[in-house]
Amino acid sequence: MLAYQLIERKRNGCRIEPGEWQELIASYLRDEVTDAQMAALLMAIYFQGLDPDETAALTETMLRSGASLDFSHLVAPRLDKHSTGGVGDKVSLILAPLIACLGAAVPMMSGRGLGHTGGTLDKLESIHGFRTGLSLAEVRSQVDRIGCALIGQSEEIAPADRRLYALRDATATVESIPLIAASIMSKKLAEGLTGLVLDIKRGSGAFMPEVERGLELARTMVTLGQRHGVPVVALLTAMDRPLGRACGNALELEEAIHALHGEGPPDLLRVTYALGAELLVLGGLAAGRDAARRAMEVAISSGKAAGKFREIVEAQGGDPAVVDDPSSLPQAACCELFFAPRAGFVSAIDPRRVGFGVIELGGGRARPGDPIDHSVGFVIAVRPGDLVREGEPLATVMARDAAGIAAGRRALEQAIVIAEEAEFPLPLISHRVTVEGAMPYESSDTPVEVSAQP
Amino acid sequence: MLAYQLIERKRNGCRIEPGEWQELIASYLRDEVTDAQMAALLMAIYFQGLDPDETAALTETMLRSGASLDFSHLVAPRLDKHSTGGVGDKVSLILAPLIACLGAAVPMMSGRGLGHTGGTLDKLESIHGFRTGLSLAEVRSQVDRIGCALIGQSEEIAPADRRLYALRDATATVESIPLIAASIMSKKLAEGLTGLVLDIKRGSGAFMPEVERGLELARTMVTLGQRHGVPVVALLTAMDRPLGRACGNALELEEAIHALHGEGPPDLLRVTYALGAELLVLGGLAAGRDAARRAMEVAISSGKAAGKFREIVEAQGGDPAVVDDPSSLPQAACCELFFAPRAGFVSAIDPRRVGFGVIELGGGRARPGDPIDHSVGFVIAVRPGDLVREGEPLATVMARDAAGIAAGRRALEQAIVIAEEAEFPLPLISHRVTVEGAMPYESSDTPVEVSAQP
Repeated sequence: MLAYQLIERKRNGCRIEPGEWQELIASYLRDEVTDAQMAALLMAIYFQGLDPDETAALTETMLRSGASLDFSHLVAPRLDKHSTGGVGDKVSLILAPLIACLGAAVPMMSGRGLGHTGGTLDKLESIHGFRTGLSLAEVRSQVDRIGCALIGQSEEIAPADRRLYALRDATATVESIPLIAASIMSKKLAEGLTGLVLDIKRGSGAFMPEVERGLELARTMVTLGQRHGVPVVALLTAMDRPLGRACGNALELEEAIHALHGEGPPDLLRVTYALGAELLVLGGLAAGRDAARRAMEVAISSGKAAGKFREIVEAQGGDPAVVDDPSSLPQAACCELFFAPRAGFVSAIDPRRVGFGVIELGGGRARPGDPIDHSVGFVIAVRPGDLVREGEPLATVMARDAAGIAAGRRALEQAIVIAEEAEFPLPLISHRVTVEGAMPYESSDTPVEVSAQP
Repeated sequence: MLAYQLIERKRNGCRIEPGEWQELIASYLRDEVTDAQMAALLMAIYFQGLDPDETAALTETMLRSGASLDFSHLVAPRLDKHSTGGVGDKVSLILAPLIACLGAAVPMMSGRGLGHTGGTLDKLESIHGFRTGLSLAEVRSQVDRIGCALIGQSEEIAPADRRLYALRDATATVESIPLIAASIMSKKLAEGLTGLVLDIKRGSGAFMPEVERGLELARTMVTLGQRHGVPVVALLTAMDRPLGRACGNALELEEAIHALHGEGPPDLLRVTYALGAELLVLGGLAAGRDAARRAMEVAISSGKAAGKFREIVEAQGGDPAVVDDPSSLPQAACCELFFAPRAGFVSAIDPRRVGFGVIELGGGRARPGDPIDHSVGFVIAVRPGDLVREGEPLATVMARDAAGIAAGRRALEQAIVIAEEAEFPLPLISHRVTVEGAMPYESSDTPVEVSAQP
């Protein structure tokens, strides 16, 4: 009866009070509210939205449905990053050891590949023996000891969100900004953070391509953090092309390791430094973003960041030697160059086509739980805006066999568009959103978009 | 996967093709599509609607999910009426024998009380022994023999609608015009009719109070009938006050029996004649509505209509003597008059308050399957617009005990509003909707609204 009235009220555009959210979610977890009723409510929310109070109440209710990490005994700031998901995005692998070696505690919970996007957990598991399924007690002890743990979403965290997410996934109710924001923040706030940075992707390869929707999502999550007492900054970054050059699990891990040694592609480093600078400032570990940036450069050039990654790999059961010799990562049996079919400007590199290409090669899952081949994928040498000659090598396909090579080649043929005239891609980082509002992003970096070629 | 795509498409305001409706409903009945997915789709339909092709495809799919009555061997027209539900509406009890005795075959499927409204089946079961649960074979044979059967919705008819209706009822997705129209018409078209009349209630006591929505529902169902080859006419009638005087199961049956003997309240008779005239013209049993009206008056004054009801009661296991002596119906233990608390005009008789009052007295169900007390209810002697003196009797409460009398009195105090100035109620019959469109209703009847006092 309660559930019926709440569905009807939301359907009619009215609000649900905080106490009612609590009762509703508790009843749902006790199976007194059916999946069908919850699905109808989710669809009503898709159409009618949630106001800030409702979004906060839903977030807090899902957060409190499970355990939280308690790091209140630590002096170090607890910092994390969340990305809305992209192709070639291996920022977390670099950022976590980088800010941990600068004094942050980083209890980083990540996900697996979803849709066309890759997942940090899958990339980490390219390292033989690497365990991502730590218990909360293990996470706490590892963060205490070495300042960082890279883990999957624990069963103990926000079980209400896990059930609701599975339901949304089956009922076409994922694409709702307040539901996305509440889902992400209920998990992130359970990490006991003192600061969070969000990487909101925009452009054709993002789950939410339109910049206006990205900004709304950013504002919603920044507000949720503020209400919970956790400062949050969001950057809107480009996902109209893959980030960096490598796409595929071991290939991306290798690129991240190179970046930790100071040899990453410029766009990848720029996004990593921008997000890291926000975190170091939020955590009081740097006086400003420029100072933070310099500290990160030193942490990389001195080998401290790579050293921290070595510690993390060792602590979680992997062979730390991989950080010095990534060639010990799984290697694909076949490897072929892909050449420019004609001369012209690279006008687009479609991240969805590339991401689904990795899945076709075996590097992603058709359904949850499927095994994946960590070795396969692409390394794309060119960027949108580059001028290329006919027959020039544009990319490498790494595959299990000749059929995989052919499939990878088809994916690249469709993904990489070469045109007569140059088209300009989205700015790499376009907006910065804080509690004060959304502003165009300004940084001391020189733009690397069009000119930067390896 | 199919279900997900259809939900997403409808959510985005796009259409679902006829073949997809078939596959979707078939998969749902095989439990391959979950209740949660169907609930999300229903809520998406609530917001995005269905176009005429989609509504027709859904209706036909639900119709074909079960059995249909086949009366093609009959020369007589097969006619039925459907009402969207009201308080005090005992028209079916009068209309079915009335048009059956004039040559129609009437395989009338009715429902039970729903929300604040009463149900024809509950009223009929006031007659000891009356069986409403006939099989389709029994219905067919009884209609062949005596021209009429008064039954509940058979398990054999439109099982897809039954499952969907239960789901809508739990998920606040009932109030969607295409879903209401498809649900009603999938059952009515299974009766093998050659003509159907709809009584669409409007006003505060209707499930859909606004006249515009009532007209849209009427147009949708008239169109569905036309596409299926069954002529349908809809009348919009007033449900801003109860119809007739009696509200409560046995009390309403008694009033219907009086009406069959020519002694019904004017508003009840006027609605019954208006609906009956449409049916007799649709069935080719009268040349026009005026002729039909005269034929019905003769059928009543000659005793033919009451005789037909006697046959029906006997055929379905009841004691036909009730038609001559309604005092053998269940009688309430307590009976008290309700007096006007002040002088003035009766400005409103709230049908919802009256209907819920009957439920509080035990004459309706708090939950499906609860037993009901057929004897209890109200007889309201006044109509909106009447001028009353302080202390004048306005109504009678029939209850099981003193507590029931007190509850009934409270209901009437709230339901019957007495004001300084007269307010005019809705016209009893305001619109007539056919395939040609919606027109203001005109009849040769003198208006009985304000002047007619018992």
